[in-house]
Amino acid sequence: MKTLTKELWMDIPKRRQIISIHNEVEQLVSQSGVQDGLCLVNAMHITASVFINDNESGLHADYDRWLEQLAPFDAGSDPATGGYLHNRTGEDNADAHHKRQIMGREVVVAITDGRLHLGPWEHIFYYEFDGRRRKRILVKIIGE
Amino acid sequence: MKTLTKELWMDIPKRRQIISIHNEVEQLVSQSGVQDGLCLVNAMHITASVFINDNESGLHADYDRWLEQLAPFDAGSDPATGGYLHNRTGEDNADAHHKRQIMGREVVVAITDGRLHLGPWEHIFYYEFDGRRRKRILVKIIGE
Amino acid sequence: MKTLTKELWMDIPKRRQIISIHNEVEQLVSQSGVQDGLCLVNAMHITASVFINDNESGLHADYDRWLEQLAPFDAGSDPATGGYLHNRTGEDNADAHHKRQIMGREVVVAITDGRLHLGPWEHIFYYEFDGRRRKRILVKIIGE
Repeated sequence: MKTLTKELWMDIPKRRQIISIHNEVEQLVSQSGVQDGLCLVNAMHITASVFINDNESGLHADYDRWLEQLAPFDAGSDPATGGYLHNRTGEDNADAHHKRQIMGREVVVAITDGRLHLGPWEHIFYYEFDGRRRKRILVKIIGE
Repeated sequence: MKTLTKELWMDIPKRRQIISIHNEVEQLVSQSGVQDGLCLVNAMHITASVFINDNESGLHADYDRWLEQLAPFDAGSDPATGGYLHNRTGEDNADAHHKRQIMGREVVVAITDGRLHLGPWEHIFYYEFDGRRRKRILVKIIGE
Repeated sequence: MKTLTKELWMDIPKRRQIISIHNEVEQLVSQSGVQDGLCLVNAMHITASVFINDNESGLHADYDRWLEQLAPFDAGSDPATGGYLHNRTGEDNADAHHKRQIMGREVVVAITDGRLHLGPWEHIFYYEFDGRRRKRILVKIIGE
């Protein structure tokens, strides 16, 4: 069995942003030498997501508006006025913990013939929901 | 290590439909000869999901109504009137890209003693959100 | 290749509750002897989730309130008055099948140097949406 383990560092200057990590993951699969296996890509922080969808900026803006409707940002800590109990810890990012559950923590992608085995439009993204600091993504490849 | 890789082709005549792919996946696990391992099943298209839940038609109708509330179909491209920016690309399927994020891209199922290791009611489904054309599901099995 | 397979039994006295299973999973990784690999943790029942997020009770209460808004409990079976068709089967847990899709069925965690490879705040939880009976979680570890 061959494995490759790599942490990718991100530092997004905005609170929320979608960033392609597709090329980085492709290169790591190539480096790993794995011909047949699985590639796990996950956010190592709990206010961010890794997901696969379309590389289209209009859709990304749609997601952002939609997630803000489903789990609005509110720095307050009173649920009666739209706040979150989590923010009583001194954080203002409770909405980010919710948005990440919709978009997911991780993707697992097959490797076949030494390459990511993806459909025609599948593209791997990192979704930052509480940026402005250094955070990590994990890529773990196993196979042979 | 043993592996099996198989693309299943779907062609759903309706826009949205839930289809069991359980037996197909079970047969592939059996074919693979893997006794102990993992089975990844994922939609290869970004307007469809693979998920595990109940094989009960009432629940499936409930899901459909619920997803339509969370991310309504609208072919328009003006967010102010319920449309999606994504539809400015000429598509009418932005809602499908949203619904798929709720239901998920993939499932990873354990294989034990040569069989899918599932709970009593776990059943594997494909959820098409933008059908009426040929699309693929990937099954990737690794183990020994 | 080494593997470890373990079913964890849960019996939650309430309908809904979030329970840490982090230590149990850590111990199984240690027992497995796997240095480099993947650890799948999934609910074996379709009205429960396994997820990774913050070990903070305020956030857990926020999740519960949020999920109740997205998919309210209603024992009825008439969609026109907030019920679910699924409850015509005699069940009252249709909401639980919906909540579980938001929070997810499973997590896949990397194992590196014989330990779960997690970010600083990642913590593994079981989320019961329809408790008061015995249910199982599966831990499957593969690697070498």
